[in-house]
Formats: sequence, C-alpha cells, structure tokens
Amino acid sequence: MQYSIREAIAEDMEYVLELIKELASFEKEPGAVEVTADDLVHDGFGSEKLFHCFVGESNRSIVGMALVYNRYSTWKGPIIHLEDLVVSETMRGSGLGTALLNEVVKYCAKQGVKRISWEVLDWNEPAITFYKKKGAKVLRDWDVVHLDEKGIQNYLKNI
Amino acid sequence: MQYSIREAIAEDMEYVLELIKELASFEKEPGAVEVTADDLVHDGFGSEKLFHCFVGESNRSIVGMALVYNRYSTWKGPIIHLEDLVVSETMRGSGLGTALLNEVVKYCAKQGVKRISWEVLDWNEPAITFYKKKGAKVLRDWDVVHLDEKGIQNYLKNI
Repeated sequence: MQYSIREAIAEDMEYVLELIKELASFEKEPGAVEVTADDLVHDGFGSEKLFHCFVGESNRSIVGMALVYNRYSTWKGPIIHLEDLVVSETMRGSGLGTALLNEVVKYCAKQGVKRISWEVLDWNEPAITFYKKKGAKVLRDWDVVHLDEKGIQNYLKNI
Repeated sequence: MQYSIREAIAEDMEYVLELIKELASFEKEPGAVEVTADDLVHDGFGSEKLFHCFVGESNRSIVGMALVYNRYSTWKGPIIHLEDLVVSETMRGSGLGTALLNEVVKYCAKQGVKRISWEVLDWNEPAITFYKKKGAKVLRDWDVVHLDEKGIQNYLKNI
C-alpha cells in the first residue's frame, strides 16, 4: 500500500471531514460532528488559521490525516495539541499512522515546543499501545472536562 | 473577604506565576513549572497573544486567576480551553472560584464558542464536585497524553 504525506489544502477538507466522522463513529459519538467542510476551509485556510493539517494520500484518495494547533501550558509555555490522528480503516497496519505522527513531531520540533499533547479514550487499547511505543505518556489520572453549548447557556441563566 | 475580578495586565504576571506554582505544588508537580514571569508577559501581552487571563484582587493583592486560550474541535469548531483556575489558599470558600468561572463563561459566550474544555486530576474531588455543580461533564473515559521535550527528542532520533 503506497502512500505519501503532505500538507493539506482547502480542497482536501471534504475528505478530511469524512475521516473526522469515521473517527467520531469509532469513538461512539457519530452525531457529535457539527463542523462542515466549509467550516474547515474557513477555519484552516482563512485569514486566521485555527489549525494545521497533514493528509496521507494513496491512489489520489485521502486515507489519513493529522490535525494540530497551538495551545499554551502555564508550565511549559507554547505547546502543540494533536486534535485528531486518523487512518482510514482500509489503511490500518500500513504504517500510515506512524508516518503521519512522524510529520507531526517534526513540525512540532521545528516550532520548538516543549510538549505535544493529545487525548485518548481509555478503552482504545490499540491507540494507547501505539502511543506508548512512540514514547508518549498516558496520564491516566487526568480527566477531560467539558462545558458544552447547552451547559454554557444554562450557566449564564444561573449567574 | 472582599475581592474584585478584572482582566490581567502585564504587571500582574509575577503574581499569576506564584498562583501557577501554588497549583503545581497542589498537583504534586512543584518542579514542573519552567515558565517565567517574563515568558508570561511576552506570551500574553506581546504582539501575538497566546492566552487571556483574569485575576481576582483583594486588598491590592492577586489572590486568584483564570487563564484561557482558543482551541479547535473538529466536532464543534472553535472552542476555549481553561488552562488554570486558581484560588489562593487564603481565599478558599470565599466564592472567588465561582466569580472567576463566571467571568470565563461570560467571555466564552461572547466569543460564541460551543464548548469550554479543561482538565482535572481524578483525585481532586472538591474540584470535580465544584465543576459538576456548575453543569460541566467530567469525561472519566478520556485520558490526557503527553509527548514531552525529551520524548520529542528521542522520537526524532528513532525516525
């Protein structure tokens, strides 16, 4: 299975969205994706770039992607967050996940950040094994907290 | 205990750093803070603003702070992350934590984001109880992953 990694262009976003949805389904939240391909084009390639994206291409199809953006750690300063790393099911085991992560780490090293962070579901053992093998630390004692759109509205009513 | 909340200015950063260190000690990582007050001034008040900070002031002292920045969700679009919410030990139980979180939620609502995210240590039950009471969801099945500075260097050697 031949593939190549390159920086995403705006025209890739409809295929990137398919991968985002594929991952959301795998993570048991198929209905959670509200973003559209137009949003991704606007947010990633407009005047203010909110993320940076790499894609894996095989036979002129987008079969994988990695999407990152800047965060700020009050301990380490500027860091980079890997929001999604997706390999299409047809490409599992091809080394594409490693190839995409290689690009991400090279990109982050070039930016000089002291940390790359991401999040993983605690039952996603294949992903956890993969990340640990790459030298990442899975912080089992840190949980993610969300105040969602409805939560924000309810909060404001009760101030 | 009287206090007021306001947007931070560059001159607050040395006191904000003290609160960052106070939180790091509470989180059992007192040595993890590499950021300096000068870094915070540069990163928060320079030409490129990497975060937005609110402080709580009492008797002309900085006794609490909340620090946020933009993130990007591939499900919800632009979101805001609450990196730190710190209330100095002397001010616990005064309502300052709620007052700071109120400012954060109002700020996020003004930006029109669909989510505020943050992270919490799973043994920090007082914080978890507080956040849940405010309507936030603690996602116990999501873990945080870090590839740190040494991890990045080692990774690059093995590509």
